Amino acid sequence: MSKKRNVEFIGVVEKSGKISRVKVFTKFCTGLQAIDRYSHVVILYWFHLRDSKKERCTLQVTPKRHPGAPQGGVFASRSPSRPNPIGMCVAKIVRFKNCTLYVRGLDAVEGTPVVDIKPYLPRSDSVPGARVPTWTLRGPKT
Amino acid sequence: MSKKRNVEFIGVVEKSGKISRVKVFTKFCTGLQAIDRYSHVVILYWFHLRDSKKERCTLQVTPKRHPGAPQGGVFASRSPSRPNPIGMCVAKIVRFKNCTLYVRGLDAVEGTPVVDIKPYLPRSDSVPGARVPTWTLRGPKT
Repeated sequence: MSKKRNVEFIGVVEKSGKISRVKVFTKFCTGLQAIDRYSHVVILYWFHLRDSKKERCTLQVTPKRHPGAPQGGVFASRSPSRPNPIGMCVAKIVRFKNCTLYVRGLDAVEGTPVVDIKPYLPRSDSVPGARVPTWTLRGPKT
Repeated sequence: MSKKRNVEFIGVVEKSGKISRVKVFTKFCTGLQAIDRYSHVVILYWFHLRDSKKERCTLQVTPKRHPGAPQGGVFASRSPSRPNPIGMCVAKIVRFKNCTLYVRGLDAVEGTPVVDIKPYLPRSDSVPGARVPTWTLRGPKT
């Protein structure tokens, strides 16, 4: 069995900042029906600036934005350099209009392609007491 | 700009159940270094049984496993039928040995390809009070 598959971008981060604007392409717009019944979403996006052979072959990193972080595997970090450059953020929906989500908490630069949007379900997605190494508590959230 | 990209599977769910066994392929094994510093991971996987043109064109669903669920957009559900058939689960690490993670809470059938593994960071990933429609509280967690 082949080990490669295609993903198709469903939208783009049109503007990033404290509030980010996520435009879902017209052909996928129906997929957002009832999204505003949720307060938060999980956004999967494509680290397009790290989509090179070199970055996708990276298996170990020393996270630079977190003082004191030791070297570790990419699957033990949220580094954008990884075999499949997919990022994940939990974001709060601020507004939803015309195929566009305005969200708070999305750590993705302008122009970032969006791969998927999922409703955030605290029953399965929230683990407040999960254990992490202390260096992850310093610097940015991801 | 083309709107399609490749993902390459990094592993497979060798056994599913209360405890699932996730094998990471040898070439990616180094990427797991220090994963056991975390209690939980986010696993992104490929809904290979829904990877057909028809399922990937589905934009609205009526979740069957949740009594009383109304029709909604696929991005407002965790349905496996979606443009990019990527599933997401938060799972607890039970054991880590020889490129293999034994985890609790992975809702993926045996043979499911794995796309990415990320450390779970409660600081950014845990939102205990997120609002959801009541139908999501009935039936399975996702």
